[in-house]
Amino acid sequence: MSSSDRVESAIAERREIVNEAITEQLPVQKPERLYAASRYLLDAGGKRLRPTILLLTAEAISGVEPFDAEYREFPSPTGEEVDVLSAAVSIEVIQSFTLIHDDIMDDDDLRRGVPAVHREYDLETAILAGDTLYSKAFEYMLDTGAPAERSVEALDELATTCTEICEGQALDVDFENRGDVTTDEYLEMVEFKTAVLYAAAASIPAILLGSDDETVDALHGYGLDIGRAFQIQDDLLDLTVPSDTLGKQRGSDLIEGKRTIITLHARDQGIDVESLVSEDPTEAEIEAAVETLEDAGSIDFARKMAQDLVESGKERLEVLPDGESRELLESIADYLVERGY
Amino acid sequence: MSSSDRVESAIAERREIVNEAITEQLPVQKPERLYAASRYLLDAGGKRLRPTILLLTAEAISGVEPFDAEYREFPSPTGEEVDVLSAAVSIEVIQSFTLIHDDIMDDDDLRRGVPAVHREYDLETAILAGDTLYSKAFEYMLDTGAPAERSVEALDELATTCTEICEGQALDVDFENRGDVTTDEYLEMVEFKTAVLYAAAASIPAILLGSDDETVDALHGYGLDIGRAFQIQDDLLDLTVPSDTLGKQRGSDLIEGKRTIITLHARDQGIDVESLVSEDPTEAEIEAAVETLEDAGSIDFARKMAQDLVESGKERLEVLPDGESRELLESIADYLVERGY
Repeated sequence: MSSSDRVESAIAERREIVNEAITEQLPVQKPERLYAASRYLLDAGGKRLRPTILLLTAEAISGVEPFDAEYREFPSPTGEEVDVLSAAVSIEVIQSFTLIHDDIMDDDDLRRGVPAVHREYDLETAILAGDTLYSKAFEYMLDTGAPAERSVEALDELATTCTEICEGQALDVDFENRGDVTTDEYLEMVEFKTAVLYAAAASIPAILLGSDDETVDALHGYGLDIGRAFQIQDDLLDLTVPSDTLGKQRGSDLIEGKRTIITLHARDQGIDVESLVSEDPTEAEIEAAVETLEDAGSIDFARKMAQDLVESGKERLEVLPDGESRELLESIADYLVERGY
Repeated sequence: MSSSDRVESAIAERREIVNEAITEQLPVQKPERLYAASRYLLDAGGKRLRPTILLLTAEAISGVEPFDAEYREFPSPTGEEVDVLSAAVSIEVIQSFTLIHDDIMDDDDLRRGVPAVHREYDLETAILAGDTLYSKAFEYMLDTGAPAERSVEALDELATTCTEICEGQALDVDFENRGDVTTDEYLEMVEFKTAVLYAAAASIPAILLGSDDETVDALHGYGLDIGRAFQIQDDLLDLTVPSDTLGKQRGSDLIEGKRTIITLHARDQGIDVESLVSEDPTEAEIEAAVETLEDAGSIDFARKMAQDLVESGKERLEVLPDGESRELLESIADYLVERGY
């Protein structure tokens, strides 16, 4: 198997386990409309990348070979059993809550190929479904059976992460109205809005399983690095992949005037990014705009930044014992910037 | 001082301390628009009834006379110091988050005499401000310095409470479309939507200060009882207090067809509640409707239920040591059903 096939199959295998756990931990109970709406987006799909990272990290820390472990009774190196699957569900549920509320805020119609929750249900139910997932995520993180000191630390990481996601979203909105956003500010926004949840996914299993601070910090850094790389790759794909493959209009960020690390770099090179494309551009117009960005070195700048982040993230994994799980975590980092869409 | 003067002054004194703590713990920091929106409703007013109950319970448990205590270093009977003020802020912040999201869901324009957050700011900022307060509340509850076992238990109570508030709100919406709601179902909805946060406010200090399970359960029950009584009194005031005093149209629940314990009882007596008043009724029409409800025994039924709940709540306080703080908690229970508006 190629490295990317191995990653995809590792994700797929864990996705199935995470999906079963979601069905078990978040049943559609009374009031049924609320819980059906809370499950709607989770059931519609999703790679389960963050919970996969969480489970792989747990495997690596405990020295358990993939799938030799019962995730509900995961052996902590210090002797206790920890339900790391409940922590994995918690992280995925937080991700789902943010998507539901983000779709309301952006008034997006579609998500994962189905109507957004506020379209399929209504605004009221969508706000409430997000709020329910929010507290459920805290319940799941409290339910791992880890020693109290570690649970408190994991909860603290989760709460701080959620606050930062909100701050990142607020910065993103704020930036839309500002012409003077720096690349550093943009990267901080991406860190908060996107990367911190990867950092939580990678570091929380270490906290729950009793790893030392150095390991927890390194895994947190791994998550931040690959989360930022993931977002930069998203920005690159928007420009470089044909609309057919992308499943949406190529260059949509340019058309919508969205700031990305690429357009910010180009602006700093003196390019008038706003007038690169018209409102309803032809494919040739977009091609020309991308060439301008390439000539300015902005595409290469972003590619190199993503690649550097991935290398940095992989280096941080050296705190983990050698083995298949650590290799998979390294491959996931590569996969995030190698994926074609 | 009369009993209700004593209660009002006890609440006012603690309100000031809670308000200072909110300013300290939730500063308007970057991103400023987000934090200004998060503070907006908290700064607009509010009695701080729930944090007052939390602080009084802590005083009673520790045997500390009111205001002899430094709430940031509250003496636990088992020897540790606990920052109960941070827990009090947490509860108030949860209350504020639910109000912000409720106002969006009900599309209400005003709250505490100022525009609702989604009116003063916008929908996006209001959703995000609520979400920020949500995770901040968990951060504050993690920040009391209580031993980890107790923090975990307090967090669990907080998370479960938030889930139940969402469920209660969903049931309330659901009931609007149902003609066959029973009084038991209504009381369960009130328990979830309103009373559980009083229960959390009364029981969490006991958890943090290391009280036994019997005390924690009794205080939880006190909160549920007085929370339900509070809601029933609200329903009664809507019918019995002149519009001038009430600050809103008398009988608005009847006009809007809202179910209350009073209208559900009347319906069970065979009264056609829907046609008691017209869409834009005169004061005389409302007076006649209230007389019908009185003749059916529905007003007395509700009054007695509220009074019974208050008595039950006060009895549960017997787990606390005698003293001024316990007396104030008893008086607060009375105050909730004696208040005129």
